[in-house]
Amino acid sequence: MITKESIEQAHERIKPYIHHTPVMTSTSINDIAGCSIFFKCENLQKVGAFKARGATNAGLQLSAEQKKNGIAAHSSGNHAQAVARAAQILGIKSYIVMPSTTPQIKKNGVAGFGGQIFECEPTIPAREKLLAEVIAKTGATEIHPFNNYDVMTGQATAAKEFLEDIKGLDFLLVPIGGGGLISGTALAAKYFSPSTVVVGTEPAGSDDTFRSFISGKIEPAQAQSIADGLLATVGEKTFPIIRENVKEVITVTDAEIVAAMRLIWDRMKIIVEPSGAVPFAAVLKSKEKFKGKRVGIILSGGNVDLAQVAKLFS
Amino acid sequence: MITKESIEQAHERIKPYIHHTPVMTSTSINDIAGCSIFFKCENLQKVGAFKARGATNAGLQLSAEQKKNGIAAHSSGNHAQAVARAAQILGIKSYIVMPSTTPQIKKNGVAGFGGQIFECEPTIPAREKLLAEVIAKTGATEIHPFNNYDVMTGQATAAKEFLEDIKGLDFLLVPIGGGGLISGTALAAKYFSPSTVVVGTEPAGSDDTFRSFISGKIEPAQAQSIADGLLATVGEKTFPIIRENVKEVITVTDAEIVAAMRLIWDRMKIIVEPSGAVPFAAVLKSKEKFKGKRVGIILSGGNVDLAQVAKLFS
Repeated sequence: MITKESIEQAHERIKPYIHHTPVMTSTSINDIAGCSIFFKCENLQKVGAFKARGATNAGLQLSAEQKKNGIAAHSSGNHAQAVARAAQILGIKSYIVMPSTTPQIKKNGVAGFGGQIFECEPTIPAREKLLAEVIAKTGATEIHPFNNYDVMTGQATAAKEFLEDIKGLDFLLVPIGGGGLISGTALAAKYFSPSTVVVGTEPAGSDDTFRSFISGKIEPAQAQSIADGLLATVGEKTFPIIRENVKEVITVTDAEIVAAMRLIWDRMKIIVEPSGAVPFAAVLKSKEKFKGKRVGIILSGGNVDLAQVAKLFS
Repeated sequence: MITKESIEQAHERIKPYIHHTPVMTSTSINDIAGCSIFFKCENLQKVGAFKARGATNAGLQLSAEQKKNGIAAHSSGNHAQAVARAAQILGIKSYIVMPSTTPQIKKNGVAGFGGQIFECEPTIPAREKLLAEVIAKTGATEIHPFNNYDVMTGQATAAKEFLEDIKGLDFLLVPIGGGGLISGTALAAKYFSPSTVVVGTEPAGSDDTFRSFISGKIEPAQAQSIADGLLATVGEKTFPIIRENVKEVITVTDAEIVAAMRLIWDRMKIIVEPSGAVPFAAVLKSKEKFKGKRVGIILSGGNVDLAQVAKLFS
C-alpha cells in the first residue's frame, strides 16, 4: 500500500509547503546519553509538528469534487492546525471538531488558518458524533490523524529526509500515539536505510501499543500521561504496519518525560512538547542498549502552553 | 584597529570551534511585525551565546608564554562559560570570578569546562578586586568581555556570517551591554554590507549607551532590567566605535522584552534569553520604522534559568 515510490512522490508533492527541518546535535547531551544522538527537529516544522506533512499530503490528493466540500477532522492537538493549514493552502474550507477543554491558543491557531471550529464534550464518542454530523451536513472529507494511508505516507517523509541527511543511523526512535508517525517512519527506514532499527516509544500511562505488541491485538489506551499528543489508541491501519516493521516499544514514565524535555530545553535551546521528548527519555532509560551507537530521534512537535509547562520546571 | 581582514582572519581561526549558526524565519512573526525578519540564532551557538566567538578568538591569539599561566575573567554570565571553554580547547587553565549570587547552573557550566571558580560579593568593585588578586597570584591573562579588540573582532564574525548568508538586509539589530557585539556587528556591516543600517537596542532600565549617545560621553548604567546580560556600562574601547558606526539606539521596557521573548518561544520554538529578545522588542515597538523592510536580528543567547523564566509566563 505504502511503497518507496509513494513516499518519494509524497515528498515531492508537499515540498513547497513544508520545511526541510534541520538535524541538531549536542555534545553535552551525547555525553549524558553515552551515544551520538541526531535530533530531527519537526518541532520547527510548519504548525510546530510533523503533522503538517501528513495533512498536506492527504489534502493535495483530494479530487476536485472533494475539494468543493472541504475537509474535516476532530482533534485537540497538532493535527487540527495541520488540517486547517492544508485547507488554507488549497483554498478550501475546513471544519475542525475540538473538545471544549482545548486551550484557547490551539483554537486560535486553527482559526488563524481559517478553520471553522465546532466544540463538543471532551470525550472520543462526543467528538466522533459531532464530526459525523458536521460531515453529513457539509459533505466534507475526513482527514483522519493516522488511520489514513495518505497521512501515513506524508509522515514518512520526515524519516526519509532524516535518513538522507544522516547516514548510518543504528537506531531511529519516534513516539507512538495512534501510530501514524511510526508507521511512516518504519516504512521509510525499510526502503531508505534497511540497517536502521526502528524503535517505538510510549508513555507508561498510555502504553496501548506496548501491550498490543505483546497480546498481538489492539489493546485500548488508558490515556493518562502528560504527553497529550500520545493518548490515542493505536489504529487498525497502523498496528499491522508497526507489528511487522518495528523492533520493539520502550515505555517511560511522566517524570522521565519531563526530565528529558527539560534537558532538551536547557542544553539545546529548543522547545519540544512532552510527547516529543518521549524518545529521548527512552534513550536515557536504556543507556546500555544505545551505548556508543548512532541514534536518530524525531522531535515530533513543539507546541506547548508555556504557562502550563513552565510549572513543571519550578 | 579592527579591519575587514582581521575579521576574516578571526573567522577562519575560530571556525573549527564554533557553530555556523542557522538563520530562522517565521511567517507568523513577520505577519505580526509587518516586516521580514531574519533571526541569526546565536542562542544555538556553543555555550548558548555569541560569547563563544570572542573568547575563542582572544584565546587562540595568546602567546605560548601567556598560555602557560592561563586566562581569567570576572563574569556572572555567558562570557564566563565562553572563557572556560576557550581554555579547555587550548588545554590551559582558566580562573573565573563569579558573584556569590550566580545561579548554580552557570557555575556548573564553568566547572564543566574545567574552569576554577572564585566567589565574591555581587558588586563590580568586589569582582574587579578579586580578579586583580587572582591575576597577581596566577599570572593569568585577563580576557575582558568587551574592552578587548580580539574579543570584539571575534564577535564581529556573527554578523559576517549573517550578512554572507542573507543578502540585502536593510537593518541589523543587536542588543547592547558593554558594547562588544554591537561594535563587531557595526564594523562587519561597514565592511561586508555597507547599505545595512545597524541599530542598537537596550533595556530602558540600563540605557547607558542611549544616554551616552546623546551626551557624547560615557554615562553610567543604572543596571535595572530583566535583561541580565545587558547591565554593563558601555566600554571606553567600544563606545567610540559605536558612536561612529551605529545609526541609533532604541530602548524597550522589561514588559516589552518579556512579551517579545514569549512570542519567540511560542512561534519559533526556540529559547532566547531576555537579553536576546531586546532587538525583537525594539522592532515591535517601532513598527513604522521597519515596515516592509528586511530586518536582521542577532538572537544573542539562550541561557535562562527555566524555573525563573517560567514564572514570567504564568
